[in-house]
Amino acid sequence: MRSLFALISSSISIRRRCVISPLITPRRRYSLSSYITGRPMDATAEQPLRTTLADKIARIETQGNSVRQLKASGAAKPEIAAAVDALNALKLEKASIESQLQAAISGNVVNRDAFRQAVVNTLERRLFYIPSFKIYRGVAGLYDYGPPGCAVKSNVLAFWRQHFVLEENMLEVDCPCVTPEIVLKASGHVEKFTDLMVKDEKTGMCYRADHLLKDFCKEKLEKDLTMTAEKAAEFKHVLAVLDDLSPEQLGAKIKEYGITAPDTKNPLSDPYPFNLMFQTSIGPSGLSTGYMRPETAQGIFVNFKDLYYYNGNKLPFAAAQIGQAFRNEISPRQGLLRVREFTLAEIEHFVDPEDKSHPKYSEVSNLEFLMFPREEQMSGQSAKRFPLGEAVSRGIVNNETLAYFIGRVYLFLTRLGIDKEKLRFRQHLPNEMAHYAADCWDAEIECSYGWIECVGIADRSAYDLRAHTEKSGVSLVAQEKFSEPREVEKLIIATVKKELGLAFKGNQKMVVEALEAMDENEAMNMKATLESNGEAEFHVCTLGKAVTIKKNMVTISKEKKKEHQRVFTPSVIEPSFGIGRIIYCLFEHSFYTRPSKAGDEQLNVFRFPPLVAPIKCTVFPLVQNQQYEEVAKLISKSLTATGISHKIDITGTSIGKRYARTDELGVPFAITVDSTSSVTIRERDSKDQIRVGVEKVASVVKEVTEGQSTWADVLNLYPAHSSASADE
Amino acid sequence: MRSLFALISSSISIRRRCVISPLITPRRRYSLSSYITGRPMDATAEQPLRTTLADKIARIETQGNSVRQLKASGAAKPEIAAAVDALNALKLEKASIESQLQAAISGNVVNRDAFRQAVVNTLERRLFYIPSFKIYRGVAGLYDYGPPGCAVKSNVLAFWRQHFVLEENMLEVDCPCVTPEIVLKASGHVEKFTDLMVKDEKTGMCYRADHLLKDFCKEKLEKDLTMTAEKAAEFKHVLAVLDDLSPEQLGAKIKEYGITAPDTKNPLSDPYPFNLMFQTSIGPSGLSTGYMRPETAQGIFVNFKDLYYYNGNKLPFAAAQIGQAFRNEISPRQGLLRVREFTLAEIEHFVDPEDKSHPKYSEVSNLEFLMFPREEQMSGQSAKRFPLGEAVSRGIVNNETLAYFIGRVYLFLTRLGIDKEKLRFRQHLPNEMAHYAADCWDAEIECSYGWIECVGIADRSAYDLRAHTEKSGVSLVAQEKFSEPREVEKLIIATVKKELGLAFKGNQKMVVEALEAMDENEAMNMKATLESNGEAEFHVCTLGKAVTIKKNMVTISKEKKKEHQRVFTPSVIEPSFGIGRIIYCLFEHSFYTRPSKAGDEQLNVFRFPPLVAPIKCTVFPLVQNQQYEEVAKLISKSLTATGISHKIDITGTSIGKRYARTDELGVPFAITVDSTSSVTIRERDSKDQIRVGVEKVASVVKEVTEGQSTWADVLNLYPAHSSASADE
Repeated sequence: MRSLFALISSSISIRRRCVISPLITPRRRYSLSSYITGRPMDATAEQPLRTTLADKIARIETQGNSVRQLKASGAAKPEIAAAVDALNALKLEKASIESQLQAAISGNVVNRDAFRQAVVNTLERRLFYIPSFKIYRGVAGLYDYGPPGCAVKSNVLAFWRQHFVLEENMLEVDCPCVTPEIVLKASGHVEKFTDLMVKDEKTGMCYRADHLLKDFCKEKLEKDLTMTAEKAAEFKHVLAVLDDLSPEQLGAKIKEYGITAPDTKNPLSDPYPFNLMFQTSIGPSGLSTGYMRPETAQGIFVNFKDLYYYNGNKLPFAAAQIGQAFRNEISPRQGLLRVREFTLAEIEHFVDPEDKSHPKYSEVSNLEFLMFPREEQMSGQSAKRFPLGEAVSRGIVNNETLAYFIGRVYLFLTRLGIDKEKLRFRQHLPNEMAHYAADCWDAEIECSYGWIECVGIADRSAYDLRAHTEKSGVSLVAQEKFSEPREVEKLIIATVKKELGLAFKGNQKMVVEALEAMDENEAMNMKATLESNGEAEFHVCTLGKAVTIKKNMVTISKEKKKEHQRVFTPSVIEPSFGIGRIIYCLFEHSFYTRPSKAGDEQLNVFRFPPLVAPIKCTVFPLVQNQQYEEVAKLISKSLTATGISHKIDITGTSIGKRYARTDELGVPFAITVDSTSSVTIRERDSKDQIRVGVEKVASVVKEVTEGQSTWADVLNLYPAHSSASADE
Repeated sequence: MRSLFALISSSISIRRRCVISPLITPRRRYSLSSYITGRPMDATAEQPLRTTLADKIARIETQGNSVRQLKASGAAKPEIAAAVDALNALKLEKASIESQLQAAISGNVVNRDAFRQAVVNTLERRLFYIPSFKIYRGVAGLYDYGPPGCAVKSNVLAFWRQHFVLEENMLEVDCPCVTPEIVLKASGHVEKFTDLMVKDEKTGMCYRADHLLKDFCKEKLEKDLTMTAEKAAEFKHVLAVLDDLSPEQLGAKIKEYGITAPDTKNPLSDPYPFNLMFQTSIGPSGLSTGYMRPETAQGIFVNFKDLYYYNGNKLPFAAAQIGQAFRNEISPRQGLLRVREFTLAEIEHFVDPEDKSHPKYSEVSNLEFLMFPREEQMSGQSAKRFPLGEAVSRGIVNNETLAYFIGRVYLFLTRLGIDKEKLRFRQHLPNEMAHYAADCWDAEIECSYGWIECVGIADRSAYDLRAHTEKSGVSLVAQEKFSEPREVEKLIIATVKKELGLAFKGNQKMVVEALEAMDENEAMNMKATLESNGEAEFHVCTLGKAVTIKKNMVTISKEKKKEHQRVFTPSVIEPSFGIGRIIYCLFEHSFYTRPSKAGDEQLNVFRFPPLVAPIKCTVFPLVQNQQYEEVAKLISKSLTATGISHKIDITGTSIGKRYARTDELGVPFAITVDSTSSVTIRERDSKDQIRVGVEKVASVVKEVTEGQSTWADVLNLYPAHSSASADE
């Protein structure tokens, strides 16, 4: 059976939302444990190889001894030669098994690393992104989006607004990043938004404790091929439970394995929690602590009352926010995936906990895609493709609204260009989820770093609104007005303080509180017992013992009351998007190479759909010539007028090189001016070209970039142009 | 003559960019000195009234004495009565003059305050904005944009991208807010981005020193009507020079006037500088100081090299950035105008300092609008309307590129809906500008707080790139390759160290440096003097005295050299937009009230152009009825498909009330469903209605909101609908 943990633990969680459950520390939801691989290591292949290798090594030792003995005993040359041949044969077999094992362990790591390097090189060279403050040697975990990256980001956000905010009439808000401490105390971030850190005891350099342990185990598993199966199993177990280790357990393992500071080999401190929020001070007094928000959601929760009113005091409704969030990572790694400042896009959909149906559910219920429910993870199976509607009817997805958002997220990501085969929705395991959460799914995208959590979709029940109600004293609730008053039975527990005081003296208060806290069942049982026996045994939690309650100490009854409305705390269903992560995965999924025409080099291409392409179109005069340049400028002007972003290139570079340059930016269409009346439009991936009149070209490009027509449509409408140019 | 300072000093500067000139502290560029009035106080009316009032008071005293004397001397009753009548008449005259003076002083303050209150009430009630963290009693200077405000902001930014980035093919970047200290040391912010602060010596409460002095002077001028003309002049002078006072001078004035802490009346500390950046710590060590960026520009400057390369190593080009900026104000006032976190949109246009022409200059040179050049300000005149081209040809605006951006900013603001009559471009005075700046203009918008700087357009010369070159050691320069090598004459100053050492001993180094620093003129003069006299007197700054240079100490010559390129630091022209301020002014300029049909109340309207309106259209069934509701939903769907943001309101509220509700949100069009085949579209400001077929309504609304047609166009095309509804 495959390791359960290996299957699920390579996801990177985007959200370290504070939770109450002591099991789920922010750390566990964020760490990248086990191998950073696209697929879990093939344990079935690895184990027998390790055994065979151990066997070969033993046999080599034995055979080596035989050779030495033969030599020492002065045996015949042919006999010695035969023994040496056998030894050499064993050594060859060992080498072969070693390389098989190495391959099994590292899997496609090498290819994947090379692929990633090719993508990242292209991204950096073409300024999709730039390490921030590069001329000052940069700051780990901070990146700039350069011009094409910034355009992609702005397109992704515009589509997000269109797909979610506009489509669902969401209430978009825009709150500050600077947040006063009290808000983040209420949400739990001040107390719990931490990672465990160790310090180099001599230099004071800081490391993430779980990273050091993880690196140690990984390196052992990858490099120490002679390790026993038991030892390998132990390291794998550590990797699997990494996220659940207490600070003490983590510290003990670090000591046990003798792990030291990677840079100096100095001893390390015990692990201790480090809060990941950037702290600052609001105003000049130094007395008012503030933090840079670690998520945008709190800004929505604190405004619930106003937003509910704005929505005509009606549920359900959703609020949304796009904005920067900040996490002061201890030691950021993995390039664009784990950064100290990033753009989040979050939706908080407020809904009546008693009615989580969704009017547009039927629009997504037939969608089919990879889902990875809890059950499949626990039983070691893999993600399966089935209709979303089935997941709801089988009770796998908790409710229609949650499912609706899962479906909408699927549509959003795939329309951006995320590969359907590398996208799965993984349900949180029970111990992964906060105790108050009703259900939780992550949209995970596979890239060279493994399966990355890019969107979290959680039914957080009433937790957040209750936390702020409690801290602020402002009641964040909704009302359902009944069309006519409803009769309800209310339980009345009337304690007789005088009698209770006489009987319990100093303990009276705790007994009274325990009595008043009884639920209907308990109370009615006590009533019956008191009526039949005159007294009842009653366990008082806060006293840690049972007391005897007499009939004259409490009156229990039920009263009928008319109620005109129901007051309740809405549940919140929260899809939360890590925009930077989605964009990085999109870069990997869109990247490919193809040989140049001469076949002497590999050319890079990003196959961005027009929706996200940083520039929609380029305009080139075929040759440097005043007339063509003027036509190019004319076309540029009409493209600007229709709102199509484009680039005009009037350099004398060969047309082939100019195509290659823009393919590498993912520009979907290129207009080449080779006459003053008509021009060609070339599609990036097929390299097909059509011929279109100068006056029409802007509107054709607009149609195909905005999706009114497909390339296939226009290919039918306009004459094909077969390139006679030697460059293409 | 009007006070020069009163004319210019009511602007609020958006930019506290650090400058080197000691005269221009960040404070001066930001403070709101003098009266917060739309127009300067009418000093010509005030002065004679003060004199007359002083005269009346003196005469009342004299007459009062006469009455007392008459009474004491037992004069005849009619005589006493006549004297008392005269006294009363004088008192009446005094009261009348007092109220005239009061009116002259406060001008339209009262009306303006009432107008502002009406706007702000509407904005807050309809959630255009919300004081952040309201349920926790908020934080001064932090505001959320609620749904309609957020939509307006997003529309303004989208138009900014369209109007500037797309139109000019600018390179947009997106850099983090968290910035390491070294970057802001290079820019000067760590040292100079400060305001002067005083502390309540007992409670530690902090105040802006200049605000306290300003408030004191203002109150005196407004409330103390019996003040002498000399005293009034003194207070006005203080207000005028407020920004130029040193910490010591400011402290002395506070002491002289006996100003105490406003809340406690406790004594105040001396003023001291407080850095306005939010400070934080990057990473866990606590050793790496960071700040939340006070502006977005630095992110562009540090990337100059990459961006220049991206642009094919060609000038000019512009980079742009939209993002949050942070200023930890000491005590924020004035609502949305002075906040601790805000959105900036900045452009850095890099240009060859020897060629600041602009290819598209002719597209703006005929624009005419209010300009307020330095000369007019200094000579006490007011802003004048003349063509931009004239300002350039007369040398008022320094260069074409600067003028081009002034013109583009004018078009941007007025297309958003800023009132042309309340928009002026004010040139910085010489002492307002950094010493390195070539020219500087502020787009100021008049609102109830006075003339507010909303966009700064500065030619900052090579300052920023040079500062980062120096600090980082990375050369941020551009090259101009010559088509063929150019012969240039180079000045060669060869010092003879041995002779200089003998003559000047310990001072040798300073003499050598001074000699080598001579410009061509000085050097050639010295050469001539040395040749004729054998020696020359030479003033060495660093020694503070003249020395005698002999012929054998230095050889001065000119050599011809061939150069293949010119290497230079580009100039930067920087338009910097305070998006929040522009939006607030837009709110005020768009707001008006009109009587309801019944005439019993005033209804609020925002006359936003469709471009910025938060929602483009509402859909109402005329009466609650299943058929109409279905048509409304169908229309809603087709509006979503065409990308038109809208709101559907199927409540039973009267149609008039529903119109009023959406007028208050500035929704330009309302579709009322009163049949299943055709519906009406009503325009917000004219209240005109047309009748359009159900299948056409979405495309008609799209046309008029996106500007392909005007309302007048469609009014001609479709039958008018005269409302028979009693509600409208």
